[in-house]
Formats: sequence, structure tokens, C-alpha cells
Amino acid sequence: MTLRIVAGTAARALAGRVAAALGAGPAEPAVRRFPDGELRPAVGGVRGADVYVLQSTGPPVNEHVVELLLLLDACRRAGAGRITAVVPYFGYARQDRRTRPGEAIGSQVVAGALAGAGAQRLVVVDPHTPGLEAACPVPTEMITAVPVLAAALGERLPGDAVVVAPDLGAVKLAEHYATSLGRPVAVVRKTRLTGTSVVAEELVGDVRDRPAVMVDDMISTGGTIEAAVNVLRSYGARPGVVVAAVHGVFAGPAAGRLAGCALGGLLVTDSVAQMDVASSGITSSGAAPIGGPPPAEVLSIAPLLADAIGRLHGDRPLDDLLMRA
Amino acid sequence: MTLRIVAGTAARALAGRVAAALGAGPAEPAVRRFPDGELRPAVGGVRGADVYVLQSTGPPVNEHVVELLLLLDACRRAGAGRITAVVPYFGYARQDRRTRPGEAIGSQVVAGALAGAGAQRLVVVDPHTPGLEAACPVPTEMITAVPVLAAALGERLPGDAVVVAPDLGAVKLAEHYATSLGRPVAVVRKTRLTGTSVVAEELVGDVRDRPAVMVDDMISTGGTIEAAVNVLRSYGARPGVVVAAVHGVFAGPAAGRLAGCALGGLLVTDSVAQMDVASSGITSSGAAPIGGPPPAEVLSIAPLLADAIGRLHGDRPLDDLLMRA
Amino acid sequence: MTLRIVAGTAARALAGRVAAALGAGPAEPAVRRFPDGELRPAVGGVRGADVYVLQSTGPPVNEHVVELLLLLDACRRAGAGRITAVVPYFGYARQDRRTRPGEAIGSQVVAGALAGAGAQRLVVVDPHTPGLEAACPVPTEMITAVPVLAAALGERLPGDAVVVAPDLGAVKLAEHYATSLGRPVAVVRKTRLTGTSVVAEELVGDVRDRPAVMVDDMISTGGTIEAAVNVLRSYGARPGVVVAAVHGVFAGPAAGRLAGCALGGLLVTDSVAQMDVASSGITSSGAAPIGGPPPAEVLSIAPLLADAIGRLHGDRPLDDLLMRA
Amino acid sequence: MTLRIVAGTAARALAGRVAAALGAGPAEPAVRRFPDGELRPAVGGVRGADVYVLQSTGPPVNEHVVELLLLLDACRRAGAGRITAVVPYFGYARQDRRTRPGEAIGSQVVAGALAGAGAQRLVVVDPHTPGLEAACPVPTEMITAVPVLAAALGERLPGDAVVVAPDLGAVKLAEHYATSLGRPVAVVRKTRLTGTSVVAEELVGDVRDRPAVMVDDMISTGGTIEAAVNVLRSYGARPGVVVAAVHGVFAGPAAGRLAGCALGGLLVTDSVAQMDVASSGITSSGAAPIGGPPPAEVLSIAPLLADAIGRLHGDRPLDDLLMRA
Amino acid sequence: MTLRIVAGTAARALAGRVAAALGAGPAEPAVRRFPDGELRPAVGGVRGADVYVLQSTGPPVNEHVVELLLLLDACRRAGAGRITAVVPYFGYARQDRRTRPGEAIGSQVVAGALAGAGAQRLVVVDPHTPGLEAACPVPTEMITAVPVLAAALGERLPGDAVVVAPDLGAVKLAEHYATSLGRPVAVVRKTRLTGTSVVAEELVGDVRDRPAVMVDDMISTGGTIEAAVNVLRSYGARPGVVVAAVHGVFAGPAAGRLAGCALGGLLVTDSVAQMDVASSGITSSGAAPIGGPPPAEVLSIAPLLADAIGRLHGDRPLDDLLMRA
Amino acid sequence: MTLRIVAGTAARALAGRVAAALGAGPAEPAVRRFPDGELRPAVGGVRGADVYVLQSTGPPVNEHVVELLLLLDACRRAGAGRITAVVPYFGYARQDRRTRPGEAIGSQVVAGALAGAGAQRLVVVDPHTPGLEAACPVPTEMITAVPVLAAALGERLPGDAVVVAPDLGAVKLAEHYATSLGRPVAVVRKTRLTGTSVVAEELVGDVRDRPAVMVDDMISTGGTIEAAVNVLRSYGARPGVVVAAVHGVFAGPAAGRLAGCALGGLLVTDSVAQMDVASSGITSSGAAPIGGPPPAEVLSIAPLLADAIGRLHGDRPLDDLLMRA
Repeated sequence: MTLRIVAGTAARALAGRVAAALGAGPAEPAVRRFPDGELRPAVGGVRGADVYVLQSTGPPVNEHVVELLLLLDACRRAGAGRITAVVPYFGYARQDRRTRPGEAIGSQVVAGALAGAGAQRLVVVDPHTPGLEAACPVPTEMITAVPVLAAALGERLPGDAVVVAPDLGAVKLAEHYATSLGRPVAVVRKTRLTGTSVVAEELVGDVRDRPAVMVDDMISTGGTIEAAVNVLRSYGARPGVVVAAVHGVFAGPAAGRLAGCALGGLLVTDSVAQMDVASSGITSSGAAPIGGPPPAEVLSIAPLLADAIGRLHGDRPLDDLLMRA
Repeated sequence: MTLRIVAGTAARALAGRVAAALGAGPAEPAVRRFPDGELRPAVGGVRGADVYVLQSTGPPVNEHVVELLLLLDACRRAGAGRITAVVPYFGYARQDRRTRPGEAIGSQVVAGALAGAGAQRLVVVDPHTPGLEAACPVPTEMITAVPVLAAALGERLPGDAVVVAPDLGAVKLAEHYATSLGRPVAVVRKTRLTGTSVVAEELVGDVRDRPAVMVDDMISTGGTIEAAVNVLRSYGARPGVVVAAVHGVFAGPAAGRLAGCALGGLLVTDSVAQMDVASSGITSSGAAPIGGPPPAEVLSIAPLLADAIGRLHGDRPLDDLLMRA
Repeated sequence: MTLRIVAGTAARALAGRVAAALGAGPAEPAVRRFPDGELRPAVGGVRGADVYVLQSTGPPVNEHVVELLLLLDACRRAGAGRITAVVPYFGYARQDRRTRPGEAIGSQVVAGALAGAGAQRLVVVDPHTPGLEAACPVPTEMITAVPVLAAALGERLPGDAVVVAPDLGAVKLAEHYATSLGRPVAVVRKTRLTGTSVVAEELVGDVRDRPAVMVDDMISTGGTIEAAVNVLRSYGARPGVVVAAVHGVFAGPAAGRLAGCALGGLLVTDSVAQMDVASSGITSSGAAPIGGPPPAEVLSIAPLLADAIGRLHGDRPLDDLLMRA
Repeated sequence: MTLRIVAGTAARALAGRVAAALGAGPAEPAVRRFPDGELRPAVGGVRGADVYVLQSTGPPVNEHVVELLLLLDACRRAGAGRITAVVPYFGYARQDRRTRPGEAIGSQVVAGALAGAGAQRLVVVDPHTPGLEAACPVPTEMITAVPVLAAALGERLPGDAVVVAPDLGAVKLAEHYATSLGRPVAVVRKTRLTGTSVVAEELVGDVRDRPAVMVDDMISTGGTIEAAVNVLRSYGARPGVVVAAVHGVFAGPAAGRLAGCALGGLLVTDSVAQMDVASSGITSSGAAPIGGPPPAEVLSIAPLLADAIGRLHGDRPLDDLLMRA
Repeated sequence: MTLRIVAGTAARALAGRVAAALGAGPAEPAVRRFPDGELRPAVGGVRGADVYVLQSTGPPVNEHVVELLLLLDACRRAGAGRITAVVPYFGYARQDRRTRPGEAIGSQVVAGALAGAGAQRLVVVDPHTPGLEAACPVPTEMITAVPVLAAALGERLPGDAVVVAPDLGAVKLAEHYATSLGRPVAVVRKTRLTGTSVVAEELVGDVRDRPAVMVDDMISTGGTIEAAVNVLRSYGARPGVVVAAVHGVFAGPAAGRLAGCALGGLLVTDSVAQMDVASSGITSSGAAPIGGPPPAEVLSIAPLLADAIGRLHGDRPLDDLLMRA
Repeated sequence: MTLRIVAGTAARALAGRVAAALGAGPAEPAVRRFPDGELRPAVGGVRGADVYVLQSTGPPVNEHVVELLLLLDACRRAGAGRITAVVPYFGYARQDRRTRPGEAIGSQVVAGALAGAGAQRLVVVDPHTPGLEAACPVPTEMITAVPVLAAALGERLPGDAVVVAPDLGAVKLAEHYATSLGRPVAVVRKTRLTGTSVVAEELVGDVRDRPAVMVDDMISTGGTIEAAVNVLRSYGARPGVVVAAVHGVFAGPAAGRLAGCALGGLLVTDSVAQMDVASSGITSSGAAPIGGPPPAEVLSIAPLLADAIGRLHGDRPLDDLLMRA
């Protein structure tokens, strides 16, 4: 089977880089958008091919989800030999259970719709919860961009830096970074001082007068980061916290909040398309400062995706690319 | 089973009227919208109930489709006894085949996703193509608002008016109106004057010096209407054409185009929410002028939907409510 | 995968021609028929193959449908690598919606059963409604024999001939022929003279003293053709109307009706097996007069099917073979 | 839920008797048959009902199978609350495995199609193989008419009669009759006299000068019966063998063969419609001689089906109605 | 629908208590076990009923899983109106992702098999991961026994006791207990002292000279508890730690390890059957010391399950019974 | 696709022989077994491969069934190109119908679960009932080890030996042996001496003073064999009956019963792992006496399985390997 990359509109630049790395030719299907908002993509050249449909489902998430459904259906009808949906940022991943009665489970709804539309396999990058694969009715590979970010961090961190998890949910992630970087971990957590409902943020670990790199899987509104930076300050961490996250969603108040944090650096990947990435000369090996809201260094996961897709296409193991659960 | 109406955000006002007509109590689930655009609805009181989820999928169509999927999943998880999706305006219905190689079939994609998320039955109003039900994996009732519009037209049309189909696709619809109103039909169609590719709009039927009422299932960008009005003019129809359509989508250039048509009247229903409908005191029996773009009289299909839902709930036939194929 | 043609009893001759054109070897599975009417086909040599099961579902339609289900199941169990049902004439295609309360939708029932029995893809030729593919749960290619018929017509039509659609449903089809032949189109339609239920057949377009070629997708009982020929006569068309249709079902009163039409020619294809076709030396490039009821020239679609199957097998696009929607 | 009987054309008379016994009102949906053989049934009054679709799939089996699929689909679309297909004679039941390479398994194909079309449960009467229920994807009740036949036999058999199984496959059935009638069993079987391929029919058990009643689940071409009667004669059984079978299919040479057997009686049920049954005044408690080919006494299973349906509708156990495996 | 409880062999005593609380009659289907280990359950009285199949899937887990599949299939075939699998302890819940390449995801495998066998809904108690419901293809209610345990703890804890989470995965659970009991939380966690791989257990929170109650969702081999008790000791907690867990699996070395911990108390529920529970007079309101390995107080969740089942049967919300995610 | 053998723990030795015969490399995935009995297999090297998962489901049957489900899921997730479950002994095959009200159908439950977990095709050896394939939702090849046993028997049987079926269910099997060995058949059956419930075992055929070889598909508790040997004795067969069966399950009292039979020989295959088989030097062409309970000669079906797998992998027909129905 021929390898073929199909790019959704939310991953055009990224898919271009992936296709180039794989020598897989042009990758942009026409997606007509009608005045009433209906989408009508048309894919070409997929008959009998091993097709990888790349689409991130960051904001506007619902637009991107429906477009992905249509792309998958188009590939299926056009006779694709095998269809893999590659979703670098998987929106709705945080909806992995009902937190209140009467809710839906968005991750299962989206995964089910993708499978129904034709996806035979999924590839996602650092989903918010590693339980995502169990919510998917088709085999799902969860690969990780942590090494990409860790490598970039490794070049610039002073020797006494501490890796900080901004909440308990990020502890395992922080430990992965710490192992890679050879640094200790500190954790910000809510603590219950007494038996009452009085709650305070607490920092476990030693950060006083040390530089800190705070890691998370994603930055949405920046609220968790902002709060954790304040705790770091109150515990005496050195100013200029560096923040690294795979997914830079930067929704709503994110830019303002992060600006107020006086960060020493902000690293994200292009799993969610960042403004000016295409024009800023980012290559698979480097990172470029961009001028968007907020100013962030954007590392490309194109080499990672190209590697994963190349292995899947060639029936080779993904082992070392997989997220550590 | 208890009857229960659940309203999507695109059909809040309409659902309120339907619920009121059925004496079915409040109908608005909380739908949280996060800063990154993800939706999280929560429904209540549906356990064991006969649930009707009302949601139109007009613009922004993809937002409304995904919200509907989440609402259906929420009802399913919450133990609804039976789930019917009531979609007064079904977006993507026009994508009923591939018109170019490599396309998707949006209607089947959406219908499949609705069924996958929990819809056991669909109710739609005057879909663009009557073949929609065959594209749905679950039983689908296609009901019609033509009698609602025909009744309103009947009160105000002069005796010598002609019902006009703006293209061949609307001929059957026009005949339904004509039968109801006791008027003749005229049809605008493209004609091929010679064997070349030269094409002209032609009007079949007698409209000279007669008032015309043009009917269609929906108005999207207004292009079809605008072109047909021009043909009517050139054939000598009396100025002030009245236009009636079930679905007033009014996308993109619609308002401007319709303004240029110097219509004698514009009737639509609230299958797609029209601005100020809620505040304009529309009742199930009347119609109110509204000030939106474009100025249209909006007839409510709430009585029609309440009738259909009441029958489905009570296991009575829908026969006379169904669209004539 | 090896290409393999499996022929149902309704498409034996056609499949033989297709297989020969593709160099695909013998194509006739044994189909035992027991005295009680039960069928028991046995296929051979399909393990791991790219199998195309050819079966038309013309009369006796139910026999042919069930035989096709059994053939598909047999291929599935025997380990076929990929199974495509090629149904040149798809019976029940006209049942694409419920026209009265309480009806089934035969096209969806049949398509669903085919998919359930093992068809992973369908190929149909000029189905009655282009919405058929949306009613099929598996990818469906709708290819067209119009060019085959148009080429044959082009050789014998006088320069002033008009292409006639016998009803509104055939207008698009007529336009395809007209484009290909470089002729104008005329349309027979029912018209509503007044607001009453009085209806008359009307002819739109200029046919007086001109030869006419009437086109339709299929001829079943011949009723539509007979009525339209009468209208053509009343509008002064030259006697000896030529009729061309892809599917010559010729059910019930068809032979008698067509005999009464004094046609100038009748062209159909072998999508439905025509008597004596096998013995009349029809080749893929020619057409032969046959003595069946009614006398018709039968053009073979074997080259078309061989082309389509060859492309599907070779993962090449079908684009120009597809029906224009 | 209301009980509702829907009758296929192969079980009209039987369904009428069943409906009458249950007080369930008229039972005959209109089934339009078009000149090209396509069927279009329309059911009424099934919305929300507990629907039992009665259709036997005897000859012409494929017609009856497809009609049943359409009836089920019609009920599903029309909003039936629960759909049970009641198939007194289940055609294709003998195809329960592949007996030669490349065959289909007809029983699974048909059962799968019935489930796909809407059947949520099946009821069958004495299927050829008790493994049928495992081949059905939906719950299947296999009920037995043996007591109906045994009761009729019990009234007329002399005290020294022997129950004979015409082949090994009928031994269990014969034992059921024998238990009920208090008689011994004899078995006709093929025996291998030596190690060669020479085969002879052998009779195990004592029949000399005794009257014999031969039992089987069905009579198709009569070949098994004819051969076994000959063996009985050669072993000295008294002339005038009585034959009893649930399903009187009587295909092909059956009438002639049975005429040549000089039977002392032939009992079947109306699981397959027998000629003149309706007009011969058969009631649920009696049996009437008929003049068809062959002359048989036809016992009605309407009381049995009415009992089974009544219990299913009323959520009561079927236990004693079930076939003994 | 009638309420009906069906008990698997792993939940006989528990189901008996639940049935008694609901007044639902006897609950024990015969489960034949053949000498070769195959199981053959037979359920009675479920036709048309609202059936709740209770089965815990503790050790021997695979026996209990397969038995549950058979019970569900039996209920489905026997015509149950609605089938809910109630699995107080859900084995394989910890397999919620692949932790090494090439693994299965046991939770999804088991949940999928349960749904395939007939479960239309699941009820589980405090599964190891709240993501379980997203891994289930049918609606799943995750209810919690924490209040049952918390109530029992509340009666006996001194005022200065601390709630301890034995690892990070138990922090949320500990907070639920703490909120209920009005106590502070401490957490045992692995910490990375330097950048090397040297790891130490650390205790966050103040436990010196205070009594501790350690909480977890389940106790399998006791390893986590043993390690955490050692940490508590090293941080100066008062001897006699009380341990509370919903699921007392007590596999392999558990009894020995817990004996070595010199616990001040051990509380579990009967979600997994504990020896002698039936004979020790446990009632829904009380707890009884048992003599098994290890000696534990066993609190019955029968009232909780009866409450949940009663609400599901009566279409009332479960809200306050649900696990807090 | 690469051929790959994956061995379940119940078929380790057999799979090793099969893999060796096919030159397919090592075949043993790690299967972790946790102290609580949960299994966690991990497969390697299956991406894109044509995978054959070998697992017998003999005792402990439920352990082996669940392990097989997990292995299949693991292969599916790991990207296997095609997955065939090879189940030499298929437990639960005897549950092919409900023999009492309220039972499950174990064969369908297990087959359905295997398909749900990822099996796309099944291969089984001499299942108890040939109807098994109709109970499987995926294509199923039923191959036979009768030639393996018949060849071994042929070398040692005296010329006047008789093939004995121990009950009616084994008659067809006995005929297959008899045809192959060129011997006559005798049958042990229950007979009903009068109309009462008095039953006796009867032997049909001539065995007096002749050596007997009794054949069956499997030996479970040995009860059928023991009873039939007693009948053989009473009919004067020569002492030292030889018994041959494909599946040596030897459950419960089997060893004792068979010891009491004073058999002249006992032949089984390694479809169920027999003790010491691996160490006794059995090769694909030979048979070795083993010392287990009971002492049996074990013939390996590894060559048969290797042949079947080789053909399936190479897309060649299985024809002569298939069980004769």
C-alpha cells in the first residue's frame, strides 16, 4: 500500500512538514466551506492507500471534529486501503467520565464518531488522560512529545532547576521529565489544613532559590499555571519560571494570565497550530520564537509524527514513542 | 413512560413552545461551554422517560451537530427509556450523494453519528431531499410544515396567483402548495437552447400580470430565489413576489439579495431560530413580523412538532403530518 | 491479491464477457437449486482473492437477491480477501423512501442485507435514484452506461433530433445525453391547468417535425414511455421515436405497449440479461438486434464493468466512469 | 403494549386463525406486487405494539424470505414496540454447515438478514436442526408441533403399532413420539455390510406384521419416506404405513412418490400452507382431509402458535411448548 | 416490569441480602458445573422482567467473568425485558491502558464481552479507575461505598486522626473520606531526592503521634498497604493504623503482610465475598468481625445496592450514590 | 504479510511444534498472572502480520477462554494485519442449544466473545457438533484429525475388527473411520423395549468374537466409553477394546473409569495438552506412550495445524483437511 497523508484544515502546516519528512507528496484536500458553514471536503489519490488523516481538534473544536468525520468518510468511500486518524491534540479528552449526573462523556462520543465515520485506528499525542485508549473502540496509539520538549529544556536549564507539577494530575508527567532531565520533582497540591473545607495550595518539594520548570500536558486558559506560579513564588522559587506543555490551546484569558506570570520561557509544540509557525521557519529540529498571544517557543512534533507514521506504515514497533502510562 | 423534552441551544425558544403545548415542563438542560469551545451539557430527569431531544442544526451547523451528539449521549447514559432526536432543520441534508469524486456524504455521516450517540429514532421537518430517511440507520419520520405555510398564504393571496417553483427540484413541493391552495404551478428551469453549452433560465407556465408566490424548502444564500425572481420579472409576473420557505437559514449574502428582490412578502418558520422570535409574541396560531435580516414573517412549527411528538409518545399514527414524497 | 469474478445466475453471460475482458478466467460457480426452491451455491478459488460478485437483481428479483446473499456469504466463508458486489441493475432501488405510511424502504433493506452477508463495497450502474449510495452502509460506486448508449445514438441520429425526458425525474439524465450528443432537451411533464385536480401532460421544448430520442434510466412496464410517446405525437414530433434506456426490465405489459408505440428504435444494455444476447454475437464494441420481447438492440456494458473492476482492482480512480449526480 | 399480528402472504390463513384465537383483530397488511416482481408491503397500526410477523418460508422460499424482510423493516420504521418474527416453517434451516467447500450457510444468512431487517426475536416450529437457535443472532424460541400430531395419531393407531424413524437424523424425534404414544421405536439406517463401499438400508427394531407410523420433521421431495417405506415392506411391516410430519413442503416429485407408497395415512400441519385448507373447515382441534397433491390430513398449528404468542406477549414461560433437544 | 435479581455464584450471599431488602424473592439460578469445568446456568422467571444480574468478578476472576457472560446470555434468551449487570467488584478494572507494548486492555475486553452477551447497563462499585465508564460500551453507573465505610470509621476514630492515602492514586479517595469525617489528609508518595533514580517513600502531611486511618479502593496483595504503614511508622504515626478499603480481594501474600502490619483495625465490604460472612449475622446496618485471612470487619453493601437497584427500577436518580470523580 | 504464531498457555507445546514446522520462529508471548488471578499477556512482533493465536480451551476452560480473549485483544491493538484464532479443542462446543428452559448457549457466547475481542476467523478441530460454524459470527474452518488417528489405527488393527460408535451421535464419525479403515460399523444405542420408560443399551451390528475399536470425538468423564464397553462385552466382543478420540479431556472420574475398562489401547491427540507430551519425544509423525492419567498414546496434530495454517496463510484451499459434515 502507498502511504498517503491527508491534512485537515487544523493541521495543514504540520501535515505539510510530516508529508515532507516522509516524502509522501502533497497533502491538502480541498475543503469547501459553504456560506451556511457546512463543510465539503474532497480527497484524492487515496484508493488502496495506507491513509493517515491528520487533524487536530483544538478550537474551534466542533468545527474540527466534524471536518475530521467528513474527511474519514470521504477516504472510506474513496476506497482507502486503511485509515488512521492522527489527532495530535484530541479535544474532549478531558471528558473521560461524568463529573456530574446527567453529563455526556465527550471523549467516548468523539472517539465513537471517528470510528463510525471510518477511522480504523487512532494516533494521539499525550492525551490529557492515558485512559483515552480504553474509551476508543478502535486501536489507539498514544505517543508522546515529552522527549521533544525535554530535549529543548535540557539545553537551557541551569543545573539546580526543579521540575514542578502544577497539580497532582501532572505528577507522573513531571516524573517523566525529571527522569529525562536528571532533576528532582516538586508538586503543587491543594491541602486540607483541618477537617473543614478550608483549602490551601501547598508545595511539596524544595524550590527555594532554585529555578523551576513547570510542566503540564496542555495549557488551556492558563489558570492552573497561574495559580501554581503564585505558589512557587510564595515558596521562594527563583523568578522567571519556565513553562513547558505539549498542547498550547491558549483559550480565553490564557494570554493575559500568562503575561502576568512573568515567565522565563514558554514552550509548546505545534500539536495545536500556533500563529506564524509556518512563516517563522520552524524546522523539525529547531524552535522559533513567535509573536502570537502569548509569545511562545514552538517546537514541531512533525518529526515525531513522521517517525510514528513511518513505523505504522512499515509495520515496525512504536515502542519507544509511546506515552508512559 | 413520561414524556420529556430536552432542548439544544439552537432550539431553545422552539422547544419551550413545544413543551408548553405538551404540558411537558421545563426543557432546558444546562450546556456548559468552556473557554476552549468544548461543550458539556447535563440533562436531568430523563431516567426511564420517553425523551425528545430538540436541536436544529442550522448555522453554526458543526457546533449544533456536536452539541446534539453530546445531548444524546447524556440522555443514553442517564437511562432514558427511549430517545428521539427531533431535528427541525437537518443540516448537511443536501449532501446526499457524492457530486465529485472524493467527497463525503454528509447526511449519512451526521445521521450515523446521531444513531451512534444514542438516537433511536429521528424526526425531521421537510428535509431538502426525501431520500434522507434511507440514509439514516434508524427509523426517521419526515414531517412537513407545508400546511402551516400554505394556510398563512391562503389568507392573503389574490385569486389569480400562481405557485412558482424556482427550480426543478422544487416542483413536487410547489405542487403540494398548489393542491392545497387551488392554484396552478409554474416552473423556472434552465434550458439548453442549442446543443452548445449556452444555457438560459426559462419559465414554464403562465405568470404574465399575475401575482406569484414562490416556494422552496429552504433559503440559504438566497441565490436561487434571486435568480428566479429575475426570471419571473422577465416573464411579466406582477411585482412583489411572495416567497415562502420552511427553513430560513439566511446565510452569507442572503439578506442583501432578498432586499434587492423587492419581495411582496417573505414567510419562513422557526425551524431555524429567527432573531426576536421569542420576543415578538409569536403563538402557535399566528405569525409576527420581525426585524431581522431579512424582515420575514415567522410562523411557528411548535404546534406541528407538539402534535407529532404527542402522537409518537401516544403510539398514534403520524400519517397526515408526513411529507408527501 | 488475485482478481476473481464470481457470476450469479442472472449475470452469467455478462460476467463471462467481463471476465474475458479482464483475462480473469472462468467465472461460474455451481449454484444448486433444490426441488423446494432453496439455492446452494459453491464458489471456488476465492481464498485471498479480490472478488467481484456479479449479479443483476432484475426479475425474478427476489430469487436473484437471495442468491446474491448466499454468494456473498460463500465468498466470505471461503476466505475472500475483499468482496465487492457488482449489481448492474439494482432491484428495489426505486423504494428509496416511504411513499405511504407503513411501507418499508426496499433499497435500504436490500443494501443492508448485502452488507450483512459480506459485501464490503457495491458497484451499481445508473441506479434509479442517485441517493442510493447514501442508503448503502458500505461504500458504493455508481457508474454510468450513458456514454455507451450515447455513443451508439450518436452514430444514427439526424442532426435536428431532440433529446426528450419522459418525465421530470429524467431531466438530468436527458441533459447528460444532450451534452454528449450536442442536442437540445425537451421535457414531458404533468401540468396543472387550473387550481383543480385536472392534469394534463405537457411538453416543454420544441419537437415539431423533428426526430426525437427519448431517454430514461430503465424501462419496466413501458407505461411512462408509452404516455410520453403519445405526448410527442400530439406535439408533432416526427414518427419513429427512438428510445434508449440502460436497464431493459420489460415487465408485464411492456412488450405490448412498446409494440404499440411504433418506435424507430429501442436501445438497452445487458445490465439485465436479454434473451438471445449470448447467442447473437454481441461483443463489447458492437450491438446486435435481438428477437426477444420487445425487439431491442442490446449494447453490452461488459467493457464498462471490466474497466471499472480493473480500476478498483488496480487502485486507480473511477472518476470519469461515475454517474453525474 | 398492544398485541398485533402481521401476516405475510405465505401464512395468511394460518395468521387469521392465530389472530382469531388471540382476539387480535385483522392481520393482513397490503402487499403490493409490481409487474417486475418487486414487493411493497404496508403495515398499519403497529406503532408501539408488540408485533408478531407471521410468515412461513416454504416455496417459493426466496419470495417469502424477501417479503418477510420487507415486512420487518416496515414494522420497524412504523414504530413497532417489539418485533418477533414467527416463522412456522423456516426455509434454509437444513443449510446449517458447509457440506462442501465454498458453500454458504443459508440458515445463518437468512437469520442474519431477519435480524438486520428488524426482528428482535424469532419463533420457529420444529426446525430441521435444533442447532438453528445458535445460528440466530437474536433469541430464538423453537416450539414443537409434535404433540399436535401425536394426539391425532394416538386416536387412530392400533395397539401394536411401531414408531419408525426413516433415518438416523429422525431418531430423537421418533423417541418423542414414542414416549408420547407409548410405543417402541424402529430405525431405518444405512449399514456398511463390509469394509467396502457397499451400502444397504437396514431396519433396526421389530416391525414384522405390525402397523408402522413413520415420523419426520418435514417432507420435501418424499425421497426419504419412499426409501424407508420400501425397507419397512422388505422387513415385513404391515401395509398401509401412516406418515406424520410437521412440515408438508411437497416439492417436485413428492406427490408421485407418496402416491406410490400406498400409505395408510398422511398427516402434516399447516406450517406450510396446504391447498384448500382454508375452505376445508379445519379448526384448531380437528383435522380435515384435503384433495391436494398429495391427499393429506392437515392439522392446524394455529392453537399452538396462539398459545406461544400469548405467553410471549404476557411474559409467561414457554417451557412445555419447546422442542426437546 | 417486574424487578428480578439473578445471583452469580460469586455474589450469592450478597444477592440474597439485596433481594430481601427489595422484597424481590429468591435469587439463585441453578449453575451446573461439569467435571471438565464448563458452566451451565439456567435462569427462571425473567421473561419480561427488569433483571439485575449480580456477580462479583474477584478471584477466581476468569471463572466469575465467564459465568457472568453465560448468565447474561441466558437472561437475554429467556426474554428478559431489561438486563443490568451489577458487578460490585469489577476485576480487570486496573487494566485500563497498555502499560507495556503488546498488552491487552482487560477492562475494555471484559466490558465489551459483557455487553456482547446481553448487558444493557452496568453498575459497579468504586472501580479502581473512574475512567472505567468510558471503557464500557453501555451506560455504566459507578456507585460508591465510601459513605458506608466512612460511617463505620466515624464511630470509632479519635478526634485527632489523620486520613492517609497510601499513594498518589488514592488522594482523591482520601479527600472524600476526609471531607466526610472532618479530618486532614496525609499522602504517602515516592519522591525523587535528586536527579538520579534514587527513590524514597515520603509522607506529606502531619501524622506524628496521631492515629491514622489509611484508605484505599481495594486490597489485593497488601503490598501497598504494608509499604505505607512502614512509612507512617517512620514518620511517627501512632501504632495501630486502621485500614479501610471497599474491596477486600486479599490475594496471595495479603494475609501475611497485613498480619505483619499490626493494624488497629481492618474494614472492608462484602463486594468480594468474605468467608463466614453469611454465617456471622451481618446485617445491612452492622458489621461483624470474621475469622478469615485476614481478620476483618465486613460491612455489607447490600443496602447500597438495594438502594441503587430500587432507584434504577423505579426510574429515580442515583445522584448521591455516585462515585465522586 | 508475515506469518506469526502466538501461543496461549494451554497450547504452548503444540504451538511450538506448529511454529517449528512452519519455520515461524518463537511463539510464546509473556502471560503475566497476578496473585489475584488476573492475566496480562503481552505479544510482540505482530504488527502487520498474519497472526494465528493458538489456544485450546480445555480445563480449566474459563481460564483459557479469558486468556484467549486477552491475547486476541492484544494482537488487535498491536496492529496485527489479520487475526485467526486456532482453537484445537473448543470448550463449550457441546452447548449448542438450550436443553432446558433458561439456559445459555455457551458455544455462541464464547464464539461471540472471541469475535468481539478481535478474532476475524476461527479454526477448530473436530468440534463436538458440526453446527458450530453456524454459531460463529466469523468464518470458521472445521478441520479434522480423524485421518491422523485412522492412520495410527490402521497399522495395528486385526483384519476382522469392527468400528464401534458408542452412541448415535458418533455414527457419522464412525463411518468416516470405517471408510478409511475398510471395516464395518456397529452402533451402541439406547432402545425402548416397550412403550414404557424402560430403556436398555442395544448394540446394532455384529461384534461377537471380533476385536473392536471404539471412536468418539472426545473423552470427557469417560462415562459414555465405559457404558459402551460394557455393552460390547455383553454382546461378546473380544476383550481389549481399543478407543480412539481426538480430544482427550479426561475430566473427573475419567482415569478411573477407563482403567476399569481394561482397554486394549487408548489413542488421543494433543489438541488438549497431555502430560509429559513435550518430554516424551513425540514428533509429528509418531506417537509415544505416556504415563499420565490415563495412559494413552498421544498423536500430535501439529502437522495438521501447520498444514492448515500454511494453506490459510498462502491462500490455498483447505478442502481435504475439512471435517466431513
